[in-house]
Amino acid sequence: MLTTNPLDDDKLHEECGIFGVYGSDGAAALVALGLHALQHRGQEAAGITSYDGHDFHTHRATGHVAGNFDRDDVIGSLRGQIACGHVRYATTGDTALRNVQPLYAELASGGFAIAHNGNLSNAMRLRRDLVRRGSIFQSTSDTETIIHLVATSSYRTFVDKFIDALKQVEGAYSLIVMTPEGMIACRDPLGIRPLVMGKLGESIIFASETVALDVVGAEFIRSVEPGELVIVKGLEDITSHRPFAPVAPRPCIFEYVYFSRPDSISEERSVYSVRKEIGAQLAIEAPVDADLVIPVPDSGVPAAIGYAQQSGIPFELGIIRSHYVGRTFIQPGDKVRHLGVKLKHNANRALIKGKRVVLIDDSIVRGTTSLKIVQMMREAGAAEVHMRIASPPTRHSCFYGVDTPERAKLLAAKLDVPGMSEFIHADSLAFVSIDGLYKALGEPRRADIRPSHCDACFTGDYPTTLTDQDEAVSIDQFAMLAERVG
Amino acid sequence: MLTTNPLDDDKLHEECGIFGVYGSDGAAALVALGLHALQHRGQEAAGITSYDGHDFHTHRATGHVAGNFDRDDVIGSLRGQIACGHVRYATTGDTALRNVQPLYAELASGGFAIAHNGNLSNAMRLRRDLVRRGSIFQSTSDTETIIHLVATSSYRTFVDKFIDALKQVEGAYSLIVMTPEGMIACRDPLGIRPLVMGKLGESIIFASETVALDVVGAEFIRSVEPGELVIVKGLEDITSHRPFAPVAPRPCIFEYVYFSRPDSISEERSVYSVRKEIGAQLAIEAPVDADLVIPVPDSGVPAAIGYAQQSGIPFELGIIRSHYVGRTFIQPGDKVRHLGVKLKHNANRALIKGKRVVLIDDSIVRGTTSLKIVQMMREAGAAEVHMRIASPPTRHSCFYGVDTPERAKLLAAKLDVPGMSEFIHADSLAFVSIDGLYKALGEPRRADIRPSHCDACFTGDYPTTLTDQDEAVSIDQFAMLAERVG
Amino acid sequence: MLTTNPLDDDKLHEECGIFGVYGSDGAAALVALGLHALQHRGQEAAGITSYDGHDFHTHRATGHVAGNFDRDDVIGSLRGQIACGHVRYATTGDTALRNVQPLYAELASGGFAIAHNGNLSNAMRLRRDLVRRGSIFQSTSDTETIIHLVATSSYRTFVDKFIDALKQVEGAYSLIVMTPEGMIACRDPLGIRPLVMGKLGESIIFASETVALDVVGAEFIRSVEPGELVIVKGLEDITSHRPFAPVAPRPCIFEYVYFSRPDSISEERSVYSVRKEIGAQLAIEAPVDADLVIPVPDSGVPAAIGYAQQSGIPFELGIIRSHYVGRTFIQPGDKVRHLGVKLKHNANRALIKGKRVVLIDDSIVRGTTSLKIVQMMREAGAAEVHMRIASPPTRHSCFYGVDTPERAKLLAAKLDVPGMSEFIHADSLAFVSIDGLYKALGEPRRADIRPSHCDACFTGDYPTTLTDQDEAVSIDQFAMLAERVG
Amino acid sequence: MLTTNPLDDDKLHEECGIFGVYGSDGAAALVALGLHALQHRGQEAAGITSYDGHDFHTHRATGHVAGNFDRDDVIGSLRGQIACGHVRYATTGDTALRNVQPLYAELASGGFAIAHNGNLSNAMRLRRDLVRRGSIFQSTSDTETIIHLVATSSYRTFVDKFIDALKQVEGAYSLIVMTPEGMIACRDPLGIRPLVMGKLGESIIFASETVALDVVGAEFIRSVEPGELVIVKGLEDITSHRPFAPVAPRPCIFEYVYFSRPDSISEERSVYSVRKEIGAQLAIEAPVDADLVIPVPDSGVPAAIGYAQQSGIPFELGIIRSHYVGRTFIQPGDKVRHLGVKLKHNANRALIKGKRVVLIDDSIVRGTTSLKIVQMMREAGAAEVHMRIASPPTRHSCFYGVDTPERAKLLAAKLDVPGMSEFIHADSLAFVSIDGLYKALGEPRRADIRPSHCDACFTGDYPTTLTDQDEAVSIDQFAMLAERVG
Repeated sequence: MLTTNPLDDDKLHEECGIFGVYGSDGAAALVALGLHALQHRGQEAAGITSYDGHDFHTHRATGHVAGNFDRDDVIGSLRGQIACGHVRYATTGDTALRNVQPLYAELASGGFAIAHNGNLSNAMRLRRDLVRRGSIFQSTSDTETIIHLVATSSYRTFVDKFIDALKQVEGAYSLIVMTPEGMIACRDPLGIRPLVMGKLGESIIFASETVALDVVGAEFIRSVEPGELVIVKGLEDITSHRPFAPVAPRPCIFEYVYFSRPDSISEERSVYSVRKEIGAQLAIEAPVDADLVIPVPDSGVPAAIGYAQQSGIPFELGIIRSHYVGRTFIQPGDKVRHLGVKLKHNANRALIKGKRVVLIDDSIVRGTTSLKIVQMMREAGAAEVHMRIASPPTRHSCFYGVDTPERAKLLAAKLDVPGMSEFIHADSLAFVSIDGLYKALGEPRRADIRPSHCDACFTGDYPTTLTDQDEAVSIDQFAMLAERVG
Repeated sequence: MLTTNPLDDDKLHEECGIFGVYGSDGAAALVALGLHALQHRGQEAAGITSYDGHDFHTHRATGHVAGNFDRDDVIGSLRGQIACGHVRYATTGDTALRNVQPLYAELASGGFAIAHNGNLSNAMRLRRDLVRRGSIFQSTSDTETIIHLVATSSYRTFVDKFIDALKQVEGAYSLIVMTPEGMIACRDPLGIRPLVMGKLGESIIFASETVALDVVGAEFIRSVEPGELVIVKGLEDITSHRPFAPVAPRPCIFEYVYFSRPDSISEERSVYSVRKEIGAQLAIEAPVDADLVIPVPDSGVPAAIGYAQQSGIPFELGIIRSHYVGRTFIQPGDKVRHLGVKLKHNANRALIKGKRVVLIDDSIVRGTTSLKIVQMMREAGAAEVHMRIASPPTRHSCFYGVDTPERAKLLAAKLDVPGMSEFIHADSLAFVSIDGLYKALGEPRRADIRPSHCDACFTGDYPTTLTDQDEAVSIDQFAMLAERVG
Repeated sequence: MLTTNPLDDDKLHEECGIFGVYGSDGAAALVALGLHALQHRGQEAAGITSYDGHDFHTHRATGHVAGNFDRDDVIGSLRGQIACGHVRYATTGDTALRNVQPLYAELASGGFAIAHNGNLSNAMRLRRDLVRRGSIFQSTSDTETIIHLVATSSYRTFVDKFIDALKQVEGAYSLIVMTPEGMIACRDPLGIRPLVMGKLGESIIFASETVALDVVGAEFIRSVEPGELVIVKGLEDITSHRPFAPVAPRPCIFEYVYFSRPDSISEERSVYSVRKEIGAQLAIEAPVDADLVIPVPDSGVPAAIGYAQQSGIPFELGIIRSHYVGRTFIQPGDKVRHLGVKLKHNANRALIKGKRVVLIDDSIVRGTTSLKIVQMMREAGAAEVHMRIASPPTRHSCFYGVDTPERAKLLAAKLDVPGMSEFIHADSLAFVSIDGLYKALGEPRRADIRPSHCDACFTGDYPTTLTDQDEAVSIDQFAMLAERVG
Repeated sequence: MLTTNPLDDDKLHEECGIFGVYGSDGAAALVALGLHALQHRGQEAAGITSYDGHDFHTHRATGHVAGNFDRDDVIGSLRGQIACGHVRYATTGDTALRNVQPLYAELASGGFAIAHNGNLSNAMRLRRDLVRRGSIFQSTSDTETIIHLVATSSYRTFVDKFIDALKQVEGAYSLIVMTPEGMIACRDPLGIRPLVMGKLGESIIFASETVALDVVGAEFIRSVEPGELVIVKGLEDITSHRPFAPVAPRPCIFEYVYFSRPDSISEERSVYSVRKEIGAQLAIEAPVDADLVIPVPDSGVPAAIGYAQQSGIPFELGIIRSHYVGRTFIQPGDKVRHLGVKLKHNANRALIKGKRVVLIDDSIVRGTTSLKIVQMMREAGAAEVHMRIASPPTRHSCFYGVDTPERAKLLAAKLDVPGMSEFIHADSLAFVSIDGLYKALGEPRRADIRPSHCDACFTGDYPTTLTDQDEAVSIDQFAMLAERVG
């Protein structure tokens, strides 16, 4: 686990972030900065592909963007004015470099690089058919399926082959594609994963979140729309295409809860404001008589400010983060579990002693970290510990590019709220309601028919069919196909 | 620069942290944890020495504790129940491993290891005398002077030799010493640098700050007193000695302002509470009509909470830290200066736009970072930007173990407050007064005669003579003595 | 250049060595030993693939076998009783890991690994056709062509697909192939590159040379015959197949001159004895009145012993090799050319001074090293320096898996023998005749029609068509297809 | 063990080589080349110190010269026209960097660097006295004793202090010393270890062997004489001093047997010629009826040529060295002993089968390698295996800077020649006689009184007192003083 914040270990994890630049000198350096700003979306590996008018250049590495893509020799070798990149959070052990994106292939029409945020829900079935016809897969990534569908498509132009391929896949995909002719950005018809478009001087930028535009100094233009292909062939030749039958969009609601950075703008809303508003809703729905509101750092801070402002209870730093430390301390041996949290966070004992505290966190997945934090408060002498969670209980797995533990490990899939409260040893526990969550987004409540967002992790209401899941292609069978390359 | 927080680059830096354990299995593993908790006191190098009853074992490394001292092979080789360690922030380029502490020497009486927090102000003069008599120095560290004074002392016992040596040095020193007979902890007569004592089960712990006791689960007993030697020869054989003529103590006041972690207890006071109180004093002394109180992360947070609570202006996160990132991103080429701050922190634009903001920071050294933050606020659309600083202007260098730039680079040594305000492009700028600072500590004002703390960096009132400084032994001449070892 | 012997830098280089084990515990460890013994056939990269009954496991690395494949973790991860490996000498700069063999692919019928010694002479034409039909190439290696021909073959069984593929390729190939069903070893119809078969206990071994059997303690059974497929499906299920139209074999004669180790047995002949015999032929054909016979180390030693024994002139070590040194010394800056040879070899001045010496080397390629050695003799005071070469002049490039410089750089393609003698500053120079070379093999002379070996590098008589060469697919165009992966 | 030749593992090992340059641009680069040529004298660590007129610069590293001292950044940092260096073979496990030479110290008179080949036999006694008076040792090296004797000497000038120090030490030392005033080279009164002097252009070179002069292109002038100090203060200011009472020299005879490279000139004799002559003596003293003379590579080759020429039996390469391989292959697990020799050397089976062979080696230490080689010959089918050794039996330890196993492990200290022959499974075994060895040097026999060389390893006749040895300061007690630094 590469996260440097142990309080984030027990979270759902967005699996990927993508970033593309069209038409700027030193495009790869901008991509490196953009990926660095998206590092929270995937910390296990990163890759960048550039195109210099003649050749494609690719560098991939396991680990963070910093340390791998801030080296002059690496960036210098990624020549060209067009580049795209990818950060990745691997769900299984298979962190082989060949699975790191962007993926690249030579077609008869020339080179083709692709970076994918999301997950296809019928990739296994498509793969079996392709292999039967002679396609040779080099990775275990679902993204490679798209490449082979393009390579073997009977359409003539690259764009037609690409649309032909997308029409065969189902699931979630935000894609940035590079060919010798230009760059294509697109989102699946439901727009499950985000993708935004910006401008830096004359050049065009695509990114998973607006913070990545901020870091390079680019201006946010608009989101790529669900079901839209934006094709950039020149700075004056940008076209929009909508090859799919129209459906009501269902973007992921968890981006507001945790995935996106608070300083991002998602669908014209400030993520920070939405989180504060969820905190305020929580204070209304689940008030408590207490002395201090304490955020679980860092993701609980905006909701805690909202809760404190709504309730009038003072906001205080009750948990101090060891803010200087650049590397995770790997405590040898058994003591890990015992000390894991303490190494990075320490209770502000003098503050907490004898006080009734409300802890604010964004979500509970397995519950193990919540338990440790409640204990940390008690050991510091808290009189009462109340936990308030700025999302509804997480009860279902995600199949659209989010790393969720199997259902059996989701605390909320096993226990009701009083049971969970007991599990984490809190004096009380409450979650914001699903309607409260939609209220924080400015809607009156969740629409029963066609809700405005994908909230399957809370409700089990999946917006697509789940072909591979239904065919019970277990992860074990899949793994059997995998050659392990060192 | 190894700090992972660019907003900390323009701060004064404590040069060292020390930690010792007497009488515990796996003493070195505890020391590694303690040093990790003290990492903010020195990030350039670390070292641990242990004693197993027969042999001393030492490991030193440049870089962080994590990554160097969390390896099983390293900790496994540091056998024994007694161990001490050191983290170091090097002031000059000389980060050669031989300068990394603990320093070790073989005397006729046996091995002798020493870890030092502070700086001697007559080390150069003593060194010249020792070399003339045949002593061979292996480092450029002032600490080695103490070793040679001990080795050549005409007293008979180790403790007498050690006291003989200390009586010849002037300046600041908190020391942890190991010999085959036990462990000695001591502070200089003025107690300029901190040192506390704790208990973990039966074993005795010494540490620069109480947070390091917290991380290993030890109980805080008391501070080692200024001018005190605590000698531990066994768990039942702990004695206190006061070999120096008594003087009024003058502990460093900047520990409250910035050096110590907010969750530490310093001289029975919560550092967090003192910082909040400084913020409150600042709100009283320098109020401003504004919409938001925004802390400069992370060190400005407690004072900002104090300011917000006192003033009634809401506390908000206006600067978002990229909290996942474990490594510093080294932006190649010229763009460093342009992007340095942005890579780690981003303005929360949606929040700030059109608002009048009060920024709270702990101190201003060169002013370069303050300038960048004010600009970041303006670029995000702030209507007004007011800067409030939770310490008086820093006008003088420190010679007691704190890395201060030469006076000519201290903004407050060159400009008055209006000039500084203009330099950082703020709409207004104010510092807490020196009396306000002492008020936050619970005193009515600064005592003109014998103030309770060393505040020389604010006032120029140095509590010791500065022999080497007066002899004008420039750093250049000193460097000439240095052999460079790769 | 990774050779540790600078006198070998100016040689033709065999590009590959292969080794396979069927049916032994710890098969990969045996393969590592075998590859280590074949290291002289390829020093830039190595790879091993194993099969454990369920999964294929692969590890590839640039650099030597030692240091990469003698690590417990690597060998431990290459589980199974079946394994094959490859060492590689890359001819172009493209040492990307994806070009390192064994190559691996998932077909509908299961996994498939292949290790190839040799070079196809129509790979480019076949590749263009395959890409046009939707195959995606991952490497720039000609070997991958075979994989795609197998994957897209319309035959039903793996063996039929494989034979179908081989019938479409032309050029030189000795192959070891692994599938879930077993191991296949085969040689092209002309048998240009070698491949032998051995037995270790019950298990079957295939190797490029018999020395690799020696190192693992295996018994040499026989060569795999030109045009033969040996299919091993079990220790009792070994079958031989001859799917190609029969032609007269033409194994590479340069294996005797330089490629094979002197302790190998090639086609029932001792390579050492053949080299001594070439030396004796050379003494008969080109005698010289001299005091000392001096071998150019190490490859000239056997021929020098033969020359000395035939001529009666004493054999002496006139060039001393710095035999302890494990790593190449990279002399910084311009001095490389000046000192390159001296760093590893030194003239035995006391021996040479005032003497007439005969230097014996195996071949001359560019002539640059010969020039340095002659100079080294003269600087040591030799009265006369006569050079005798144990092969005919090398005048033509090889397209069958040997790294030859372009013709324009072959000294013998530019100059006649007297010109070459002048170029290297020798008092005289002579090469063994082409008939003398065949005599050393026990034949009366070279057969004009269907000579028994491929000797195209000496004669220009290529035994296959050279499709890619004739289509003038320049290396530059080929390079354009290549994506560079870091 | 870093040797790349496993046949060298069972040899005595010279512990050090030294090299110095006075008065050349890029002096450190020349030292690196010289040390590379002396690598056979010490392969565990290397160091270089340079002086640029103001500062001393030092780089030390464990491992070979190549890979550490051929890097531009390293050589570039070692500025100045004066430099000296050292290669080291550590006898104990203590390869800590602080033991790597040149050692350096700051005296009141300025910097002082020293490189030492040899071993003092009263270092422990002197060390104890110095520590008692307040000297602090930083290494476990006997060489540091000299430094402290100089630092605490009551003489006034550096040269007088240095001579004062040398008069107190006993044992073997060839030294190169650098001070701001110049370079001093000297040998102990008996001249046990070698040291030669050369000239490169205007600059002066000192080296352990003449091969190191050859590699930099320097001219050999003469040996530094036993008991002589050569002081170089300028290119025109070179003086010779003889401060010791004169005694008859006793240089080490084993330099001829094995330590020196065959292309070195030792005391005006060619080492290669002496070795050939020893081989010829051996053929006269111990003839055998055989078919082939086979050298044990590489050190047995010159004696084997001598034996073959004298006896008329043909010289043949019966053991083939894997000459391309740059790194030692570390065979995992138990198989090391089984395969250790085979991995680097292979019997030339076709040559040996059915033949009576004479193996020629330079010495037998433990006998383990000899046993393996005899077995290798038998497995290859040799009819008879006769071993002939080009030195007398090695029966005594060396205390003058040669790594000898404790006596109990010397095969010749435990068994007589027939017993040794049986131990190594040879058909016969013979050693050259001690008189035969002196005959090869051109003397009629060994002089009983004052022999011309130190031959204590063969005869037990030690030319100095052995103070530390006599005081039974065991290696264990010594080790107790050692702090282990990682």
